[in-house]
Amino acid sequence: MADYTLFYWPIPFRGQFVRAVLAHAGKDWDEPGADAVAERMEADVAAQPAPFMAPPLLHDRAADLYLAQLPAILAHLGAAFDLIPEDPRRAALTHKIVGDAHDVLEEVTRHGGEQMWTQSDWDAFFAGRLPRWMGIFEETGLRHGLGRESGHILGTEGPGLADLVTTILWFTMADKLPRIEDCLQRAAPRVAALSHRVAALPAIVDMRADTDARFGDVYCGGEIERSLRRVLA
Amino acid sequence: MADYTLFYWPIPFRGQFVRAVLAHAGKDWDEPGADAVAERMEADVAAQPAPFMAPPLLHDRAADLYLAQLPAILAHLGAAFDLIPEDPRRAALTHKIVGDAHDVLEEVTRHGGEQMWTQSDWDAFFAGRLPRWMGIFEETGLRHGLGRESGHILGTEGPGLADLVTTILWFTMADKLPRIEDCLQRAAPRVAALSHRVAALPAIVDMRADTDARFGDVYCGGEIERSLRRVLA
Repeated sequence: MADYTLFYWPIPFRGQFVRAVLAHAGKDWDEPGADAVAERMEADVAAQPAPFMAPPLLHDRAADLYLAQLPAILAHLGAAFDLIPEDPRRAALTHKIVGDAHDVLEEVTRHGGEQMWTQSDWDAFFAGRLPRWMGIFEETGLRHGLGRESGHILGTEGPGLADLVTTILWFTMADKLPRIEDCLQRAAPRVAALSHRVAALPAIVDMRADTDARFGDVYCGGEIERSLRRVLA
Repeated sequence: MADYTLFYWPIPFRGQFVRAVLAHAGKDWDEPGADAVAERMEADVAAQPAPFMAPPLLHDRAADLYLAQLPAILAHLGAAFDLIPEDPRRAALTHKIVGDAHDVLEEVTRHGGEQMWTQSDWDAFFAGRLPRWMGIFEETGLRHGLGRESGHILGTEGPGLADLVTTILWFTMADKLPRIEDCLQRAAPRVAALSHRVAALPAIVDMRADTDARFGDVYCGGEIERSLRRVLA
């Protein structure tokens, strides 16, 4: 039996962050099929392994813990695997980067497909808030070490949780969707370089090969991915 | 000069969580006007005190830190004021509750007013996801101490960060918007009782009196609050 069970849909998106951290830490995990995920999500709250609204849901067997909410899962694993700086200021900025990544996922998918992308809405986002988000990551990196010999929040030797989260956010989006990579190279060249470097680490390469083999060329799935590919075409 | 400066709009909503934690810890903070908030939010990223997309933005003078993202701010203050359990499992569940609260704020306001509420959409939410969210908090409390002599995540003697966040989420919504209190009493009676108890603590009473005096009877403000009040009428 694996150390962890990840209940998530057969797509990268939010689950990829959990997979990357587990893979980087050399941990084993299993992933039940979508039916098992849906069953737990839709159960009466009193019958859920932990009361939760939506996956990812992680079962940490050693800790006897079922945990939902991506930022909480990343905080938990980051602490367990020593991926969050001890310095309170750098720890706080790590959590801030997680929050930013979470917001970007929400915006790119219009909150899990609550609305579909129209071409004009996407064009405004692609010229406005998307590169601004990229610029927020780039400026965070510039102020906190990225591009120096060894950064103290981004570009750390480790890599730390902030590096892994930044990588999975931007590398995955650029890898799976057209036209994102060019935008990232222009708006956040150091973040682009960091994310390519971290995505090329052996454990992350193996994890990506595994999810590519299992899921194919998918990003967030569903109607919203079709809408994204239409406006990006 | 105060220990902290909170850059946020003149409304409760997200800012109220930060205010409650600062007030509970006996800290002083100041809040510049909305113009000062907008100016920092709209500045070029390179000119921002910290690269960020949207308030709340907290300046912690002693830590020489500007920090955005509500969950990151709460994690930072919670750690600084000893409001997060040391036990990793309980700490993780505290962060999970913060994530849940964050999601509820997003859903109730349709992500900051990206869409307005129609009556039929609201009715479905009010009969479905809203009481389910309340039930998730109630069940979390039931499993982790709420209603016992002293809980170990919710209903702690402290109160801890999880209690403060739960209180500010549900008490504020019920205090400012009609019809929420009845729904909460039905779907989550123990959480309703907890939130009334914590909201009645002297430091929280003073904080609420201050924000009521400054902001009046407002919850999240803007077009979306008008939309909420229309469907709740």
